[in-house]
Amino acid sequence: MSNTPPKQGPYRPPNSPTTPRYSGIRTFMRLPYVTDLEGIDLAIVGVPFDTGATYRVGARFGPSAIRDESFLLKPYNPALKVNIFDACSSVDYGDLPCMPGYLPEAHKLIQDSAAHVFASGATPIFLGGDHSVSLPLLRAAAAKFGPLALVHFDSHNDLHQGYFGGKDTHGTPFRRALEEGLIDATRSSQIGIRGSLYDANVEREAAEAGFRVFTAPEMHQHGLAWVLEEVRARTGNSLAYLTFDIDFADPAFAPGTGTPVIGGFSGAQCLELVRGLAGLNFVGYDLVEVLPAHDPAGTTSLLAAGIVYEFMSLAALQRSASKG
Amino acid sequence: MSNTPPKQGPYRPPNSPTTPRYSGIRTFMRLPYVTDLEGIDLAIVGVPFDTGATYRVGARFGPSAIRDESFLLKPYNPALKVNIFDACSSVDYGDLPCMPGYLPEAHKLIQDSAAHVFASGATPIFLGGDHSVSLPLLRAAAAKFGPLALVHFDSHNDLHQGYFGGKDTHGTPFRRALEEGLIDATRSSQIGIRGSLYDANVEREAAEAGFRVFTAPEMHQHGLAWVLEEVRARTGNSLAYLTFDIDFADPAFAPGTGTPVIGGFSGAQCLELVRGLAGLNFVGYDLVEVLPAHDPAGTTSLLAAGIVYEFMSLAALQRSASKG
Amino acid sequence: MSNTPPKQGPYRPPNSPTTPRYSGIRTFMRLPYVTDLEGIDLAIVGVPFDTGATYRVGARFGPSAIRDESFLLKPYNPALKVNIFDACSSVDYGDLPCMPGYLPEAHKLIQDSAAHVFASGATPIFLGGDHSVSLPLLRAAAAKFGPLALVHFDSHNDLHQGYFGGKDTHGTPFRRALEEGLIDATRSSQIGIRGSLYDANVEREAAEAGFRVFTAPEMHQHGLAWVLEEVRARTGNSLAYLTFDIDFADPAFAPGTGTPVIGGFSGAQCLELVRGLAGLNFVGYDLVEVLPAHDPAGTTSLLAAGIVYEFMSLAALQRSASKG
Amino acid sequence: MSNTPPKQGPYRPPNSPTTPRYSGIRTFMRLPYVTDLEGIDLAIVGVPFDTGATYRVGARFGPSAIRDESFLLKPYNPALKVNIFDACSSVDYGDLPCMPGYLPEAHKLIQDSAAHVFASGATPIFLGGDHSVSLPLLRAAAAKFGPLALVHFDSHNDLHQGYFGGKDTHGTPFRRALEEGLIDATRSSQIGIRGSLYDANVEREAAEAGFRVFTAPEMHQHGLAWVLEEVRARTGNSLAYLTFDIDFADPAFAPGTGTPVIGGFSGAQCLELVRGLAGLNFVGYDLVEVLPAHDPAGTTSLLAAGIVYEFMSLAALQRSASKG
Amino acid sequence: MSNTPPKQGPYRPPNSPTTPRYSGIRTFMRLPYVTDLEGIDLAIVGVPFDTGATYRVGARFGPSAIRDESFLLKPYNPALKVNIFDACSSVDYGDLPCMPGYLPEAHKLIQDSAAHVFASGATPIFLGGDHSVSLPLLRAAAAKFGPLALVHFDSHNDLHQGYFGGKDTHGTPFRRALEEGLIDATRSSQIGIRGSLYDANVEREAAEAGFRVFTAPEMHQHGLAWVLEEVRARTGNSLAYLTFDIDFADPAFAPGTGTPVIGGFSGAQCLELVRGLAGLNFVGYDLVEVLPAHDPAGTTSLLAAGIVYEFMSLAALQRSASKG
Amino acid sequence: MSNTPPKQGPYRPPNSPTTPRYSGIRTFMRLPYVTDLEGIDLAIVGVPFDTGATYRVGARFGPSAIRDESFLLKPYNPALKVNIFDACSSVDYGDLPCMPGYLPEAHKLIQDSAAHVFASGATPIFLGGDHSVSLPLLRAAAAKFGPLALVHFDSHNDLHQGYFGGKDTHGTPFRRALEEGLIDATRSSQIGIRGSLYDANVEREAAEAGFRVFTAPEMHQHGLAWVLEEVRARTGNSLAYLTFDIDFADPAFAPGTGTPVIGGFSGAQCLELVRGLAGLNFVGYDLVEVLPAHDPAGTTSLLAAGIVYEFMSLAALQRSASKG
Repeated sequence: MSNTPPKQGPYRPPNSPTTPRYSGIRTFMRLPYVTDLEGIDLAIVGVPFDTGATYRVGARFGPSAIRDESFLLKPYNPALKVNIFDACSSVDYGDLPCMPGYLPEAHKLIQDSAAHVFASGATPIFLGGDHSVSLPLLRAAAAKFGPLALVHFDSHNDLHQGYFGGKDTHGTPFRRALEEGLIDATRSSQIGIRGSLYDANVEREAAEAGFRVFTAPEMHQHGLAWVLEEVRARTGNSLAYLTFDIDFADPAFAPGTGTPVIGGFSGAQCLELVRGLAGLNFVGYDLVEVLPAHDPAGTTSLLAAGIVYEFMSLAALQRSASKG
Repeated sequence: MSNTPPKQGPYRPPNSPTTPRYSGIRTFMRLPYVTDLEGIDLAIVGVPFDTGATYRVGARFGPSAIRDESFLLKPYNPALKVNIFDACSSVDYGDLPCMPGYLPEAHKLIQDSAAHVFASGATPIFLGGDHSVSLPLLRAAAAKFGPLALVHFDSHNDLHQGYFGGKDTHGTPFRRALEEGLIDATRSSQIGIRGSLYDANVEREAAEAGFRVFTAPEMHQHGLAWVLEEVRARTGNSLAYLTFDIDFADPAFAPGTGTPVIGGFSGAQCLELVRGLAGLNFVGYDLVEVLPAHDPAGTTSLLAAGIVYEFMSLAALQRSASKG
Repeated sequence: MSNTPPKQGPYRPPNSPTTPRYSGIRTFMRLPYVTDLEGIDLAIVGVPFDTGATYRVGARFGPSAIRDESFLLKPYNPALKVNIFDACSSVDYGDLPCMPGYLPEAHKLIQDSAAHVFASGATPIFLGGDHSVSLPLLRAAAAKFGPLALVHFDSHNDLHQGYFGGKDTHGTPFRRALEEGLIDATRSSQIGIRGSLYDANVEREAAEAGFRVFTAPEMHQHGLAWVLEEVRARTGNSLAYLTFDIDFADPAFAPGTGTPVIGGFSGAQCLELVRGLAGLNFVGYDLVEVLPAHDPAGTTSLLAAGIVYEFMSLAALQRSASKG
Repeated sequence: MSNTPPKQGPYRPPNSPTTPRYSGIRTFMRLPYVTDLEGIDLAIVGVPFDTGATYRVGARFGPSAIRDESFLLKPYNPALKVNIFDACSSVDYGDLPCMPGYLPEAHKLIQDSAAHVFASGATPIFLGGDHSVSLPLLRAAAAKFGPLALVHFDSHNDLHQGYFGGKDTHGTPFRRALEEGLIDATRSSQIGIRGSLYDANVEREAAEAGFRVFTAPEMHQHGLAWVLEEVRARTGNSLAYLTFDIDFADPAFAPGTGTPVIGGFSGAQCLELVRGLAGLNFVGYDLVEVLPAHDPAGTTSLLAAGIVYEFMSLAALQRSASKG
Repeated sequence: MSNTPPKQGPYRPPNSPTTPRYSGIRTFMRLPYVTDLEGIDLAIVGVPFDTGATYRVGARFGPSAIRDESFLLKPYNPALKVNIFDACSSVDYGDLPCMPGYLPEAHKLIQDSAAHVFASGATPIFLGGDHSVSLPLLRAAAAKFGPLALVHFDSHNDLHQGYFGGKDTHGTPFRRALEEGLIDATRSSQIGIRGSLYDANVEREAAEAGFRVFTAPEMHQHGLAWVLEEVRARTGNSLAYLTFDIDFADPAFAPGTGTPVIGGFSGAQCLELVRGLAGLNFVGYDLVEVLPAHDPAGTTSLLAAGIVYEFMSLAALQRSASKG
Repeated sequence: MSNTPPKQGPYRPPNSPTTPRYSGIRTFMRLPYVTDLEGIDLAIVGVPFDTGATYRVGARFGPSAIRDESFLLKPYNPALKVNIFDACSSVDYGDLPCMPGYLPEAHKLIQDSAAHVFASGATPIFLGGDHSVSLPLLRAAAAKFGPLALVHFDSHNDLHQGYFGGKDTHGTPFRRALEEGLIDATRSSQIGIRGSLYDANVEREAAEAGFRVFTAPEMHQHGLAWVLEEVRARTGNSLAYLTFDIDFADPAFAPGTGTPVIGGFSGAQCLELVRGLAGLNFVGYDLVEVLPAHDPAGTTSLLAAGIVYEFMSLAALQRSASKG
């Protein structure tokens, strides 16, 4: 039967000119759903958890929405001149287990199951979920790779100490990551930061922590080539982790997110920036804060899927380079 | 100035024929926002908490959405022949403090602040929030009044032992309430129950707990007059608490809820049932599980506001009767 | 790993109290995605084809939308007192291949692949797709089982000769089925017919063809028990096929369809009617004409998923009876 | 060319089986757009005015939205056994001129242009606009026909004295009509009244004015056959005018309206009631208060178009009877 | 109780890290609702009036929608390096009284109540409402301050003589303001003008009136720094009034408006322009033409709230400078 | 009567300051609906066909949606300094006949009726429909004018050989046009191409076919002035055809389309590019792939209507130049 999934790798999506793109079981790009990662290069992994959200909520439905908007993506990326699936046996791993409503317990589950993914040798691309999930993901990554350079796209620093008496929310992951030594601030960048703050101390604290912060107004003024040059220089050859909060994009491009901030970036600018990171040594990626219930035209998920596709392309270039 | 709020009670909404209903600060029915409940008969109280939700989430925005759809409501209820504000000095108390993401801590906050409301002598009508909030609200109520007869409108029994290893979710409040002796099952009714179950034990457990369960199919078959007669007889003169999960209504009437179940009830049926409870001795009411992000036409909030209005009318009749 | 799909049957959905219902790969009720039907009792099969639609279009996205709204369904149906998965090893088979834009070729593909499903011995429940797909499905069914009694829920007779010079659209399948001897009109019923017609001949032709037609106005007047009695008597012990156009339901309950007609039926009435067919000998079922792009609150897909669940329950009762 | 409109009457819609229903210029049912009413039996007339609205606003877009949802309607009404266009040369007259923002001036324009329509001898069906337009329409009708029996479907009595210091709004037309002797209250009925009121006087005033008022709760209790019998007896052979505020229907069936009230009626009930008026002597009809911007699935306009279709059927039966 | 509003100034929003931002009564930024403006520096004032709209309508719901999207805003503006509430005791004054449907009467009410606000010494930021409200607001402002320099962001000149025989609409306020000497055209700028016109005279008339008009195409070509330099030079030290029609922004950024025009500006460009006006002597501000019913993702209101926040920041800088 | 349509040309829209723009029968810009094209300069022609769509579908409703968003357009284009209707007698021709579901037959109907339009001497602007309609339109155009220079705005090359075994879809029209000699690739340009591809061959094939391809990344890098210079030089004085797939625009600006691709262009950029083609010799234009069911705020149709308006302006400049 024509709709039989492949029994073994290397894995790639089905051939679209013979089966319509809107048909079939809804994995990312219609990749095979495979949970044994042996021999896999690239794994799409959902993390449907949003108990860390402090305002709008619903990112638990982010992974499925991003998958739903991924079906128009095809194997060859002409901007980066790479065929992802020629370079990488790729699968959709499904979602990590993460129980809602109990943040510490869920973070532990996420960390343990992410550690399992990292252990396989596959490069994971995680689909959030609220931004609090980056903390257990970084714990798993750093346990294997040591402190990582962080390349962080966001409108918020996410360096708060806590909220409402709770220690962990989607506004705190990188404060915790610094405290735990999971990331090396001196090699890390925060890109796209903007919007109002509680007070002037917030800005100072990010700088004091050692991050290089690129604010949106200065990016709009100086251009993206400058940003890319600085970020690349700062990251260098370090092992790195890329985290992308979809609220980096302007609300016109990504309305479906929990804490949108005006004055952001276009889809074309997102693409230019991510593509401009080709050659860095990323051990993992995440894309977080997509809230489908606030995304009436699906454009947020479409943008998110397209950014994930660029992550896949970066990973394919890395695998090609290391194999080549 | 014409838009000056009243400085003291008895409180009622502003006069609509002279100020448009869509103008002004958005309290329930544009009631004065008052937090000193001395001398108040009736208080609308938001409980914007949804960390107990196991599927769709966003009921933290329920209270404000219900307020937004309350402005067309006027003082006199012709179906029950009562002018609410002639009988009751009424206010909007605002929202209880309830931090997201940490269920046990938030439940404690809710319980304590609800106790404060009950202590004032005002009759509270709580706007959820997910159904888990009924547990701390019942704790506060029972602490003052002792075990209560529960009149519970819902498509679900909400008697689960727990989920995902957590003890408290929006599917468990009445199991906990039973265990803690907050409600008297022998005087309590569950009305509108329907939909698929994990197994046949769920039905048996509700019965064993002592509840009278009215399933939707039997209600559709036997009619609402029969239900009302049975519920009234069972509740009798007991002090009672009315909890109304908006998913009691059919998804055509209340799409904006977290766990909708088909085969439910119309708005007219909701009204007939609530009005039919006039004369029972309710010490408090709640209306839960409104999720505005899934309510594109606002009809769920409109229905919820209308049901809250009937609760106010019941309370006004009670106050009139006790004063009369 | 906890998210590993089962390797062999009997198949049933994962345990929801331990993995959240919104997580995982999106098959119907999160059933295993299995394409080898040997030993399978019940198969959910998508037919994402809508080139037969003459007005609004988009039912090609119906199968995935119905799957998306199926996750709240649980194994035990209290209305019919059956645990589906105790009786039936059940899977999601994915979608049949069906190329858009070329109706005759696509119908041939659908017929051939449906024949493969019927050949396995599993009872299929097909998710459309526009109503034109019932024609190739009936061709496949009748090839195995001979002429079938049709139980047809719809607001339209779908007995037109053709449109715009084309022979096959979603308004013609049962005209073709009659001509080809796939169905036995004398044992067949059309239920819920209503709305304006080209002329008075349309009504006469349905009667002349031998169908028993139940119009919506007479159903509203005489009640559903009467309809059920008549339909059951007429179908008798014949092998039968159940086709359900979601526009049978009123637009308030099912706005997301291609040719909605006012004056229809509630969700509760849909459930009562389908449940009332328990015991008939259905060899297959379809549910068609769900258009997600016109379903802003998802209620149409939710209703469709719930009706499919009742089909599963009927099939489980049949399997239990035949095994018992 | 196949898309050439007809040059002269009798007028009817184009043949749908040869041109798709979604194509062509968007008149009601794709009727010819004709502004010379000589020899015309039935005219659809838009009245896109909403300056009388006191809450939600936007009924100026009602006529075009109702036209947009009329294309699935076909010539033969099986419930009333009449082919509209065999009986009536029918056209879409377009919209009356009505400048926004200046109510008295616009009402004068509406009255004058409506008088022109009535003078032609065609039976008009007006598409509002807010309910204030019924006042100038009744002025035009009564100028020709004398005081009329009113058959008024609505959730509100619309008998207020005024609002905000203004005399005319959508809540006042029938108070003005009574004062001006345009309607004969003793032969008039208000059907479907419900919802909260400013005080108990509102109910008394409607009764004192001489109207027969059918409230929604008593209609739900006693049934529609009773209502129809009473209304028909009361109207008798009088010349009558039918005004239908779409908020008569429940918000689940008609969310897109300015002042929705819960506890209303289904689409099937709307149809039963309007059809049940066959034989009364209506000189004109209006359907008001459709607000497309609050109608995300188009169901309100769909219902409105279907009710207008029943008005057309009533008019066709009248014309047939008078010709026969 | 923690949710008790403050009893006296200086006023600022509640502390968000201890009470969730989505909770509480919905004033702008959750500022105290205070109607005694003595000692207040900054007042947010709603003007929910839209009878002047000539096309889409519904800006009467603009003030509440803008408030609803203001809750993520925090006290410190890093782009302008100012903490608003350290500089300004700030309140939400609620809405001005403005009866719908009677434009001249409503304009008089708005003017009188705005005069009361200006008299207090607080700097007002008005939330429209359609653009016709700028006329009574300017009347009130000029009565106190004399002719003002206008800084006008819009896609339309709003200099029409009238429409449909009426003198005042949302397309005419600045024609009236010129005629009445409320503004000094020689110090005024119109920024962002674009879109089709009735004829070439419209452009000439704006120039003849003395305005400096910056069209969108020339702004896209020459850049915003040039515009800011010109506007600042032209305004100089004059007392000025800033009026911002949200349709200045492109429809992708602000779909929820009455007369959208393509080819406009991004949110980041709106921010750059408003921030670039720091140091000018504004006596008042308005933000108009937000129509929530056409804003499915809330992005228009979010942008509007963010622009209002920049107005607050400008006012805070002014107060700081004048106090400093 | 004031709403009488004009009886003969030259045709232009009604005067908006005297009749509200939202009123009347919904043709493009409310132009007269005229099907006799003798003496007409400019004709808007709908082509409501979408059977060629391979993913999202519904462009059959594109023509009416674009008309619905055209009413704010006025006669004078200040950017191009032309009054369209002074130069061109303009009409809305309605829609071409095109039966759904049978692509080859429909393409033949479209070609034949388009030939009729071209034969009249009017310049047509076609409103799609999916992009497959450009093939029969080009067949009709080339039959009259010979091979044409193509100016093609799109995110896709649309040069595929076929899909799913079918030869014609919306991804293939220009492959067929090349094979049939309808276009001269050496004078043709493809502008805005971007997004993932099946493989690297796709890029090579477009180049080998002779097209000049401008990819989005290089356009973002080098600017639009460069693109315009190259396209104008390449097209030269050739007779040309302009085809504009709305997915050229970024999904933030045009979400309502069938196969959106991120990284596209703003509305302002669309306008700059189309205006920059003034002076080329276009014999016809089309604007395709608007899907209203995926366009919740109507912004896609608004952008499309605005681009069509620029086409009209180009045609008016051409007519003026040729008459002058």
